[in-house]
Amino acid sequence: MKTYLDCIPCFFRQALTAARISTDDETIQRHILNSVSTMIPDLALDVIPPEIAQKVYRIVYEITGNNDPYLEAKKLANMSAMSLYARMKDIVDSSNETLETACKLAIAGNAIDLGAHAEFGSISSIIEDSVGYQLDQEHYRKFKESVGQSSLILYLADNAGEIVFDRILIEQLLQIKKSKIVFVVREKPIINDATLDDALQVGLNKVATIISNGSDAPATILSQCSPEMLSYYRAADLIISKGQGNYESLSGRPENIFFLFKVKCPVIARDSGYDIDSSVLISSTTLKNFKIENRFFTRSQAGGIT
Amino acid sequence: MKTYLDCIPCFFRQALTAARISTDDETIQRHILNSVSTMIPDLALDVIPPEIAQKVYRIVYEITGNNDPYLEAKKLANMSAMSLYARMKDIVDSSNETLETACKLAIAGNAIDLGAHAEFGSISSIIEDSVGYQLDQEHYRKFKESVGQSSLILYLADNAGEIVFDRILIEQLLQIKKSKIVFVVREKPIINDATLDDALQVGLNKVATIISNGSDAPATILSQCSPEMLSYYRAADLIISKGQGNYESLSGRPENIFFLFKVKCPVIARDSGYDIDSSVLISSTTLKNFKIENRFFTRSQAGGIT
Repeated sequence: MKTYLDCIPCFFRQALTAARISTDDETIQRHILNSVSTMIPDLALDVIPPEIAQKVYRIVYEITGNNDPYLEAKKLANMSAMSLYARMKDIVDSSNETLETACKLAIAGNAIDLGAHAEFGSISSIIEDSVGYQLDQEHYRKFKESVGQSSLILYLADNAGEIVFDRILIEQLLQIKKSKIVFVVREKPIINDATLDDALQVGLNKVATIISNGSDAPATILSQCSPEMLSYYRAADLIISKGQGNYESLSGRPENIFFLFKVKCPVIARDSGYDIDSSVLISSTTLKNFKIENRFFTRSQAGGIT
Repeated sequence: MKTYLDCIPCFFRQALTAARISTDDETIQRHILNSVSTMIPDLALDVIPPEIAQKVYRIVYEITGNNDPYLEAKKLANMSAMSLYARMKDIVDSSNETLETACKLAIAGNAIDLGAHAEFGSISSIIEDSVGYQLDQEHYRKFKESVGQSSLILYLADNAGEIVFDRILIEQLLQIKKSKIVFVVREKPIINDATLDDALQVGLNKVATIISNGSDAPATILSQCSPEMLSYYRAADLIISKGQGNYESLSGRPENIFFLFKVKCPVIARDSGYDIDSSVLISSTTLKNFKIENRFFTRSQAGGIT
């Protein structure tokens, strides 16, 4: 998915939010916005938005000297979500269609996004909001079928806190089939995206093999990914992709990917065909804008993937 | 009210909206955003937001060669609101407190703002939304008292379409006291702000003396206003100021001003102390951040105003 002009105001908004979390000094905040302004005229928009967001956050981190401004927010989100782990398990176990309920929770958890939203409701309210609707049944049936047939599932994580919801879903996947599940986090801190530390904080190592993708983009930009990650990407029967960033970077890919996310911005709404605030589970094979984007594979490690 | 850093992303959003209304050419739209970017680093933020917005819209108008992209939208808003004029009169006439109802309608009409909002509900729904709450009674009592004591009222207009709602309020003011009412519009087109043409389209000349303020800012920046406007400003017993832009430019002034507007952005919400979407009628004399800002008076015509 390319970057739209609508993303430009949003980059400024994100830069300002991250700047304010990093420092109270308005002069530094202003300096950050000025630096983003300087970047705009030379920006190629034929890349995906998270690739530009990565540059924007690097500016914030460089100028403030703080390369993990969301550290405390991430820890808090992990702890808050973990405190509700038992309740989420109950909700799943007492439902008629446990896998669908776990999917809905995992999608609802994607609301914990400090890039798209500066604020979100309490994690408790996110859980309450997760039920009371049906996923697109055609996509969901395909997903369930795919889970039953897969021996290697690649699970692309998005945010801290949300990964507790992901753990709930992974535990359901393992109930259906004892597949190997590889849980992929970001290499370095970027916004409130989950890293290895976060995954360990919420015990994901008990249910999956955790790896980093080798990149600090708030997305899965294959040309930036490590050989280990790409090797799993090639071998996986099923890829579960969480969040807008991963959707933006992989929505044109030919692999068997299911995108699970909350629609949080008008650009993604237009691109995906779902309204803002929708809870989405979509199969890559049915996306209208299906196309192979080989340009993501420029690193030598990507050889062999088409 | 000074410009906050939050206004910077908003300037880009406004530039993009105006660019898209002016042209379908994405290269030109991008060129406009680049030009706004170039302006940011040198921007002094100790001016009011509409003063920067004025520069932003000038960039759009210069690059596209279209200095009135909202012309059709303004005509349509005037016509649509005029078609509901009789219904609004009925709502006012059948209410217990006709002046308050007319105030509420005038405030509701401020939703027709293509700068703060790219879209708004239908004008009919704006009318429906206008009732069902009470204005702050302390401010409203002061306002009513002031209306009864004034012989010259200056009415600072905001948007096309909204001015039909203003006409309804003016007709109520005249029921209370046969004051002279001077209705002030912008000198040149800026966003969908009302100009002389708009005021004539909705027959405001039947109930008030219409003048231009001499400026194309989406606000009342006194240092840009004409001698005629300033002379009325000095002489008025009561000033009715519509919309956020006029609030931003006059909120610190010592004159007897009542601000009537819908709160549409977080910056104004913070500054005014009212939540987003609030319908506000506030007296300048009770504003917490009361201060005299003489810097608005740099033009020689302003002599004598303190």
